[in-house]
Amino acid sequence: MYKKITPKIRKEIEEIVGRRNMIFESDMIQDYSHDEFSLPEIAREPEIVVKPNQAAEVAAVLRLANEKRIPVTARGGATGLCGGCVPSEGGIVLSLENMNRILEIDEPNQMGVVEAGVRLMDFYRAVEEAGLFFPPHPGDESAMIGGVIATNAGGSRAVKYGVIRNYVKGLEVVLASGDLISLGGKIMKSSTGYNLMNLIIGSEGTLCVVTKAIISLLPQPPLARSLIIPYDELENAIDSVPLMAKEKILPMAVEFIPREVILITEKHLKKKWPCSEGKTYLLIILDASSEEEMDRLSETIAEACMGRGAIDVYVADTPKKQEEVLEIRSMIYEAIKAHTIEVLDITVPRAEIPNHVKKINEVSRKFDIWLPTFGHAADGNVHTHIMKARFENGEISPVPEAEWREKFEYVQRALYDDCKKRGGIISGEHGIGLVKKRFLSFILDKKQIEIMRDLKKVFDPQNILNPGKIFE
Amino acid sequence: MYKKITPKIRKEIEEIVGRRNMIFESDMIQDYSHDEFSLPEIAREPEIVVKPNQAAEVAAVLRLANEKRIPVTARGGATGLCGGCVPSEGGIVLSLENMNRILEIDEPNQMGVVEAGVRLMDFYRAVEEAGLFFPPHPGDESAMIGGVIATNAGGSRAVKYGVIRNYVKGLEVVLASGDLISLGGKIMKSSTGYNLMNLIIGSEGTLCVVTKAIISLLPQPPLARSLIIPYDELENAIDSVPLMAKEKILPMAVEFIPREVILITEKHLKKKWPCSEGKTYLLIILDASSEEEMDRLSETIAEACMGRGAIDVYVADTPKKQEEVLEIRSMIYEAIKAHTIEVLDITVPRAEIPNHVKKINEVSRKFDIWLPTFGHAADGNVHTHIMKARFENGEISPVPEAEWREKFEYVQRALYDDCKKRGGIISGEHGIGLVKKRFLSFILDKKQIEIMRDLKKVFDPQNILNPGKIFE
Repeated sequence: MYKKITPKIRKEIEEIVGRRNMIFESDMIQDYSHDEFSLPEIAREPEIVVKPNQAAEVAAVLRLANEKRIPVTARGGATGLCGGCVPSEGGIVLSLENMNRILEIDEPNQMGVVEAGVRLMDFYRAVEEAGLFFPPHPGDESAMIGGVIATNAGGSRAVKYGVIRNYVKGLEVVLASGDLISLGGKIMKSSTGYNLMNLIIGSEGTLCVVTKAIISLLPQPPLARSLIIPYDELENAIDSVPLMAKEKILPMAVEFIPREVILITEKHLKKKWPCSEGKTYLLIILDASSEEEMDRLSETIAEACMGRGAIDVYVADTPKKQEEVLEIRSMIYEAIKAHTIEVLDITVPRAEIPNHVKKINEVSRKFDIWLPTFGHAADGNVHTHIMKARFENGEISPVPEAEWREKFEYVQRALYDDCKKRGGIISGEHGIGLVKKRFLSFILDKKQIEIMRDLKKVFDPQNILNPGKIFE
Repeated sequence: MYKKITPKIRKEIEEIVGRRNMIFESDMIQDYSHDEFSLPEIAREPEIVVKPNQAAEVAAVLRLANEKRIPVTARGGATGLCGGCVPSEGGIVLSLENMNRILEIDEPNQMGVVEAGVRLMDFYRAVEEAGLFFPPHPGDESAMIGGVIATNAGGSRAVKYGVIRNYVKGLEVVLASGDLISLGGKIMKSSTGYNLMNLIIGSEGTLCVVTKAIISLLPQPPLARSLIIPYDELENAIDSVPLMAKEKILPMAVEFIPREVILITEKHLKKKWPCSEGKTYLLIILDASSEEEMDRLSETIAEACMGRGAIDVYVADTPKKQEEVLEIRSMIYEAIKAHTIEVLDITVPRAEIPNHVKKINEVSRKFDIWLPTFGHAADGNVHTHIMKARFENGEISPVPEAEWREKFEYVQRALYDDCKKRGGIISGEHGIGLVKKRFLSFILDKKQIEIMRDLKKVFDPQNILNPGKIFE
């Protein structure tokens, strides 16, 4: 059993981080009880929030917590969607928000060195100023690097450039014991012993606490362009995706988006999507090193898509137009969040997307539930939003709670069934956290989960790090 | 202590794989006692070689070996350079050579599904026939996929396209217990529990035996071109490398090669390198999607290099010319192998290459030892060859054994010292195996190695899988 934080322990924590880096006042602590997952019943307040300023303080807090057996849940930007940073066993929330220094953008080595609490938006800015490029782009730029690593976040640009795992080259982490270790470095390749770093990436704060990361960067692609391609039929949109590979074109991103969520987001942001035709869109982002090259890529794609039922092709070729399109895309969740129960994060083999999406539409009709679905068409990662509202005649109207709660269960089951049938997995980039853990044993076999639990014991024998997550 | 293989156990193995898939005749078993590492003293013959035909047979052999406590060393193409597949505790060599089926090249999903014993050359061919592209290219194409995964092999194209880790999306593995598990799938992203797959990649057959892999593929880049750029000064060659990033160009490969090893390889292969000037070369491989684009890239690089002391720029722009250049590059090791003691595999931060190479030259002079050094200039992976011969006036002449043995020790120490000082690691792509294990605790701290050992116990509590490797 876990121990409570006594006044004596609180005093010891104060000696480590100082009074002003602790929160236990009930009006302020509530903010640390949840992430972006919608249902309030998973929230829980910690006994205390601790905000260390450096790795040595993280180490001291963990050493103390391990000795006393107090749960410690690391917290970054709290932009997660499955309760990963909810302190579900109480204890300490270890917020990395003060550890927000960009320590170095090392241009000769093309590496960034950042503390775990650096927000993506700040990192992008620093990288861009140095003329470099950090490709992964999970939607919410207020996410912190530590959290992005903890979930192995992906985002839309993963099609060409891969997920965060491909860019993390070094980590400084604090173990449950309070030991600080450095893994990897400013190095592009390693075959030097087991790759602990790659085990830690995606482990959702359950194996150790990341305090610093070394991230490899790329030269900036000179040009980027977005194409918005409307279709009347979703199937035609999705069937257009493999045509790009056939033409030997690897776009940076290929997203499919239903028109209805664009309408809602336009209203929410008071901004205009460049096109009002069709029922569904492909948003394709290209990069290239010259205008000629970019024109050739755009034209080839436009032609291929027009041959597969596209209504038209809109081009966002200035940075301003591009920004507008990407802002609308990345604010969709914000716009429909109030009516969303859960955003699924199923990833299926790429060629299975059309049939998985067909199934989603079938489930939507069968259970009479609104399931706006969009996502990363070229990497198989589909975000189905299970809604507690209807969308009819351009208006959102709420569904009674008893009704959506019952349907929610059925819909999850039906879609995870379909996911499994198609060789998919239940999370492509959000993680398991609290919300998906009851489905872990549905998708992974027993022996695998057994090994994972044993690995957890190696890193955290007392189970103080983010307990109650990933595993049931 | 490990058990010996009794006649009864041999009989049981025979029941699993059949007599013709076992080798214990002394004239044939010798082939299975070594890899490509040069010194014969690390070789050891197994008691038996077992060649399963399917995963179920691997599982049955492992179950038996685990029950009886018999060491099992998995073996692929045996192209390794640090004794990784030498059965140093005797027992069973489990050769995957019969499991050489390319099960599927799945074009819609852009995935290859292969058994562990598929040779790279066969995989490349199948992938190319399907119009797709598998970027990683470790030098020796007779390597098998299982071994490539076991060492997290890289190769020259890692600069742009990354190492094998970036392409492995699914694995079927057999645990020491004989349990067969499937990890990942034909999926591009996963945040579904701990990523066991990424822990297994690079674990050198010590955690489990890989029997099948799912590998993601890319569309074929339409055009490739090699530039050969001679310099009189190595430093100028290496100083030219960062200029490409400055021009926002990401080549597929950037290699530096001293002229002396080209001369030896030309003689060995009876083939001609396209240029005879200079003392050192940069070999740059570019890919692009149009001739115009390729010309622009080539010209920009040529100009940048000429401004940094290049003597000339030779272009291999036909597939035939390209093939010749790449053949010479990939046969260098073959040509000097007879005189090589060990190929180091140090990886340093990219910007540290010039100083590391300077140090190598200093050590070479100080100990009067031939240290031809070449490698992957743009990813920091430097292959220094410690030689047991001199190269003077175009001729190789052997050094007495007592002399090179003494120097070998000093040179290793000096170069690993320099590696550590520069934030590097001792293996970028070859692995630790038997040969480098005494340096593991020199480069990694104690706590890290302790965790690795504990992870090993989770997977293989009886320590039957490739015992004696990685750790001292």
